[in-house]
Amino acid sequence: MKRYMLTVAYDGTNYHGWQTQPNGITIESVLNSALTGLFGKPVTVIGASRTDAGVHSLGNAAVFDMDTKIPADKLPYALNQRLPDDIVIQDCLEMPFDFHPRYAKSRKTYEYKILNRRFPLPQARSYAYFIHRDIDVEKMRQAARYFVGEHDFKSFCSAHAQVKTTVRTIYSLTVEKEGDFITIRVTGSGFLYNMVRIISGTLLQVGIGERQPWEIKSSLSACDRAAAGPTAPAHGLTLVQIEWMVPS
Amino acid sequence: MKRYMLTVAYDGTNYHGWQTQPNGITIESVLNSALTGLFGKPVTVIGASRTDAGVHSLGNAAVFDMDTKIPADKLPYALNQRLPDDIVIQDCLEMPFDFHPRYAKSRKTYEYKILNRRFPLPQARSYAYFIHRDIDVEKMRQAARYFVGEHDFKSFCSAHAQVKTTVRTIYSLTVEKEGDFITIRVTGSGFLYNMVRIISGTLLQVGIGERQPWEIKSSLSACDRAAAGPTAPAHGLTLVQIEWMVPS
Repeated sequence: MKRYMLTVAYDGTNYHGWQTQPNGITIESVLNSALTGLFGKPVTVIGASRTDAGVHSLGNAAVFDMDTKIPADKLPYALNQRLPDDIVIQDCLEMPFDFHPRYAKSRKTYEYKILNRRFPLPQARSYAYFIHRDIDVEKMRQAARYFVGEHDFKSFCSAHAQVKTTVRTIYSLTVEKEGDFITIRVTGSGFLYNMVRIISGTLLQVGIGERQPWEIKSSLSACDRAAAGPTAPAHGLTLVQIEWMVPS
Repeated sequence: MKRYMLTVAYDGTNYHGWQTQPNGITIESVLNSALTGLFGKPVTVIGASRTDAGVHSLGNAAVFDMDTKIPADKLPYALNQRLPDDIVIQDCLEMPFDFHPRYAKSRKTYEYKILNRRFPLPQARSYAYFIHRDIDVEKMRQAARYFVGEHDFKSFCSAHAQVKTTVRTIYSLTVEKEGDFITIRVTGSGFLYNMVRIISGTLLQVGIGERQPWEIKSSLSACDRAAAGPTAPAHGLTLVQIEWMVPS
């Protein structure tokens, strides 16, 4: 028996998120079916990040145990033949048997994309949140600085999240503009439920002048969801990368 | 009665191309329906470029005549409400009554996108042609130079094209690499049927070493479709822009 970790890219548009649920098709359930079909016995993956409906991934991780002679580096080819074209395995590694993708230390990077122009672009409709209003990117950058570091992000977390602590560390948070696209890129030790989307929605409020950059400080210290901005729509969000911190 | 020109962006994935046909939904027929619904009388557009099934657009043009009080710059908003989200009007201008989008002089720019990496990316599956093999971009650039200028492109045109002359002028043809994406960008006075896709397929053959850059010269002079490479798949192609040459 060996433990394998798959790197999984997906277009979340047609899925009810990562996590298996009674109604609606999910990334996790499609992966389980593909693996079960390949190995001829039931397989259940454990995901690193249980992304919401409509959220995309370039590098989510899924772990499973299997006794197989197929080498890890051949598994992506075998699996991709059994997966739809909106879910593509990018890599497969053998991991230590005590590796758990939700308890192992990691740095996660998400990108939130905004399309800021007069009319939407059809090609970006599933990958960027369209907004016509004038956006001040420099003010968004000023606001972004307040999030960096260790903070209690209780204000930036959806109410029904069940976690021991709402303290998290953000290593970097940048706002870049390229053509009509604005990209919010955030790297952190972990994120609370809806945290990146609430940070993005709040930064957007700053960008359109409905909130001042320095008000982020009090939004954070309030420890109250009502002190933050709205949750930005899911389809602008992509889990870009997970870097695993090797224990020393 | 006035003549209007719409700038039309679309994701061609779900359409049987531009041109109205007995079977299958097309960009043209959806535009006609939206305009007919808006004005309450039959409207038929004339397109600048009759793109193939699966080909995308950021700036195709559609011309129609109408007697209306809606100002040209308000028409996109009214029309977009009646269009699906994979067809979006970007602009509307009033044009001289003798303007015809297929006879007026113009420069058209197309981009052909290639995704060159180990595994496909789900988010690019409708917009870039995936290829795993090693590609020599510098050789593609060397080959590209042979296409620039006025040439008989008979070798680079699908057999059933009915045109008076197969002579066309290419103003520029560049090959750029950014991350895992290679973009072939071509600007010309006009293009024969499948011309950009055959040029792209031939450049790709050069990129993977199946054809030498200098062989493009004889491929052109042969005036024989068999002397060129394969037609690259439609979904990598986007009509980026049409610039109208104002008569002086």
